[in-house]
Amino acid sequence: VSVTFPRGFLASGITAGFKASGRPDFGLLVSEGDAAVAGAFTTNAFPAAPVQLDRRRVEGGVARAVVVNSGQANAGTGDAGLEDASSMAVMTGSALEVDPAAVLVCSTGVIGPRIPLELVDTALPKAAAGVRNDGGDDFAEAILTTDRRAKQAQTTAGTWRVGGCAKGAGMIGPRLATHGLATLLVFLTTDAPASAAALREIVRDFAAPVWNGVTVDACPSTNDTVLLLANGAGGGPAVEAGTAEARTLGETVGAACDDLARQVVADAEGSSKTLVVQVNGASDRESARSVGLAVASSPLVKTALFGGDPNPGRFLQAIGASGVPFDASAVTAWLGDVAVVDRGTVPDPVPSAAADAMAAREVVLRIDLNGGPGAATVFGCDLSHDYVDINSRYTT
Amino acid sequence: VSVTFPRGFLASGITAGFKASGRPDFGLLVSEGDAAVAGAFTTNAFPAAPVQLDRRRVEGGVARAVVVNSGQANAGTGDAGLEDASSMAVMTGSALEVDPAAVLVCSTGVIGPRIPLELVDTALPKAAAGVRNDGGDDFAEAILTTDRRAKQAQTTAGTWRVGGCAKGAGMIGPRLATHGLATLLVFLTTDAPASAAALREIVRDFAAPVWNGVTVDACPSTNDTVLLLANGAGGGPAVEAGTAEARTLGETVGAACDDLARQVVADAEGSSKTLVVQVNGASDRESARSVGLAVASSPLVKTALFGGDPNPGRFLQAIGASGVPFDASAVTAWLGDVAVVDRGTVPDPVPSAAADAMAAREVVLRIDLNGGPGAATVFGCDLSHDYVDINSRYTT
Repeated sequence: VSVTFPRGFLASGITAGFKASGRPDFGLLVSEGDAAVAGAFTTNAFPAAPVQLDRRRVEGGVARAVVVNSGQANAGTGDAGLEDASSMAVMTGSALEVDPAAVLVCSTGVIGPRIPLELVDTALPKAAAGVRNDGGDDFAEAILTTDRRAKQAQTTAGTWRVGGCAKGAGMIGPRLATHGLATLLVFLTTDAPASAAALREIVRDFAAPVWNGVTVDACPSTNDTVLLLANGAGGGPAVEAGTAEARTLGETVGAACDDLARQVVADAEGSSKTLVVQVNGASDRESARSVGLAVASSPLVKTALFGGDPNPGRFLQAIGASGVPFDASAVTAWLGDVAVVDRGTVPDPVPSAAADAMAAREVVLRIDLNGGPGAATVFGCDLSHDYVDINSRYTT
Repeated sequence: VSVTFPRGFLASGITAGFKASGRPDFGLLVSEGDAAVAGAFTTNAFPAAPVQLDRRRVEGGVARAVVVNSGQANAGTGDAGLEDASSMAVMTGSALEVDPAAVLVCSTGVIGPRIPLELVDTALPKAAAGVRNDGGDDFAEAILTTDRRAKQAQTTAGTWRVGGCAKGAGMIGPRLATHGLATLLVFLTTDAPASAAALREIVRDFAAPVWNGVTVDACPSTNDTVLLLANGAGGGPAVEAGTAEARTLGETVGAACDDLARQVVADAEGSSKTLVVQVNGASDRESARSVGLAVASSPLVKTALFGGDPNPGRFLQAIGASGVPFDASAVTAWLGDVAVVDRGTVPDPVPSAAADAMAAREVVLRIDLNGGPGAATVFGCDLSHDYVDINSRYTT
C-alpha cells in the first residue's frame, strides 16, 4: 500500500499500452486535498521533458497529483517533448477535475521516442476512476521498467504515516540536485502537515543523500526524480523547516528511503548480490560517499563480487581512485570481520575467511579513513552475465 | 622491435617465475649510454611502491635501465614493498654494471603480494646477458598480464626514431599526473638527443593526453606508468623544451601513443569491439576528453556496443552525465554518418543505418558540442560476457 499508506492519498495503476509487453504502464497518485511538495531531480545536462516541467512546478510548493507512464522516457524529445509533458498534465488535471498546474508528470523508459498522447487520453478515464486508498501496490507496479519487482516501504513517526515506492533497475547512479535526480523514480508521501520549506529541507538532508549513495551502473539518468508530498491529512500542528518535528519526520523519510534503496539494488538489472559500503573517518559526508561510490561503481569490484572473489587489491585500487584526499597509510577496511586493508596495506596472503565473506548474498565492506567525522553508506550490486544480456539487447 | 627500434637501446624478456602460468614475466630495457627521461604516473592515492620510487628518480631526468616484472604489482605492500622496489633497482644495477640510482622499476599484476626477490636474483644474470638491439619483442611479451597480445609501435621523425610498447587489458582508465599514470605500463624510447625538460613537455602535451583518453573499465590503477627515454644515439643538435624540434618529436611520440592506445583497447579484457569517440566543440581539451570518457566508460554504452544495439538515448544520457557544461540544444552526434543526436534530440524513429554503424568492429561516434575549440579523441571498448568471466575469477 506504500504511497497510499498515509491518509488522504489515492492511487491507481493500469495497462495503457506504453509498453509492448502488455504489463501495467500508467499510474496516478492523487492527494485528496492540496499537498505540499518538494523534489530532487537529475543533474544530467539533458533533463527529460517531465523533469523540466516538475522542477518548475515543485518550486511553487504545491501539488495535487502525479501521473506516470513507463515505456517512453520523454527525454531527448526537444520542444515537442515539453509540449507532450505539459499536455499530459492538462489531460490529467481535466480527468481528475483538479488544477492542471498542480499535476506533476514522470516518465521512464526508452530515451528518444515521443509519448503516445492518444494512449494517455484513452487511459485517463479508467485510471482516474480507479484511484483508491489502497491503490499503492498497483501504482508501484505500473511505474516499473526492467525491474523484476515493485519496491515499496511504509513507516510511521508517531501519528504521522510515511509511504514510498521506487522504480529503477538500471541507468542508476544518481547525482541529484535538490531542485531536480535518475531513471530512478521515487515517490514519497506523508500525511504529516509539513510545509513545502520543511519538505525541501527533508529532501536535501534525508532523502537525496540516500539516493545519491545508490549505484547500479553509475549512470545518472535523464529522468531521475524524487518527489515528497505531504497533505496534512494526519492532522496536528504544522511541521515547519528547522524544527525538531521536521527532523523527526526527515529521519522517518530517510528510513523509508534506506528501505527502498536496498530493494532497488537487490532488484537491479542482473543483480545477484548486494554490496553495502560503510565509510567512516572521512572529512565530511560527501567525501565519505565519494569513496563508497568509487568502490561500489568499480567494474573490477562488481565482477569480483559476482564471482565471490576476495580480491582486496581491487578495494584498495577503488578507494585510491576516488579522488578524495586522505592519508593512505591510515586506511583500514574490513570485509565482514576480516581486515582486507590494514593501514594502507593488503594482507599477504589474504585470509581465507575473506572468501566466505565475499560469498554472502549481501556483502558488507567497512572502510575507515581515520581522518575525520564524515560517514556515509553506499548501496551497490554485482556485475553479472545477466546484466550484459539485459543491456546488450534493450531496444532491439 | 618497438622499444629497441631507436638506436642505442637493448632489451630482453624471459620467464622468471613471477607468473604461475610459466609465460615470460621479467623484462629489461637498457640504454647503452645515459638517457634523459620523463614520466607520467598514476594519481591513485595508493601508488604502488615502484611508482613511488620512479616518480622521484624521474625528477632527476636521467635513466639508464628499466626493470619490469609481471605477476605481482608491488602495490598495497607498505614499507616492505618500497624496500623491495629499491632492492630490485640495486640488483639490476649490479647485474648491468650501471648506477642503481639510474634504474627505474615497474611492476604489474596482483595487488597485495610481495615481489619474490629470489626470483629477481635468479633471473637477472640471464636477462642481463640477453639484452639485444632486437629484444623489443621479447620485452613487450614479458610485461603482459591479462593481455592477449603484445602492443608495439615504431615511427620516425626525420632521422629520429621513436619506439614504444604498452601492456594493459584491465584496470585501465588512467588519470595521470605528468609526474606520476595505471596498470597501464607504457615504455617509449627515442634516439633523439632530447633534454629531460623537452621530454617532460612531450609527456605532458603529447603522451599523457592520449593515455588519459583510454578507458577499459575507468579504473585508474595503483601502478599506471608512462616512461619516455631519449638517449641521443641518433645524433644531431640537442632538442630543447619549447622548440619546434621538440614539438615535432612530440607529435611523433603522440602518434606512437595513438597507435598503442588503439592496440590496448582492441586487446582489452573481453573486448570484441572498439569505440572511438571524437569530441569537438568543447570549451577546451579537458572538457572534450571528459565528455568522451563519460560515453566510453558508460556500462550502458559498452553493453549496447557489445550487442550492436543502436540506442542513441544511451549516448545522450552519457554525454549529459559528463559533468561538463554545454548548451544541450546545440549538441549533435553521429554514429558513423548517421545523426543519432540532432541539436539535443534523438531521432524518432532511429534510422536503421544506425544499426549497421553499431555492428562494425570499430564504431566511431562523433560528438559536436558546438561551443568552442576544444577537441579530444577517446578510445574505449565493449563490455562482454568474456569481461565478466575474466574478472569474476582473477585471483581465484
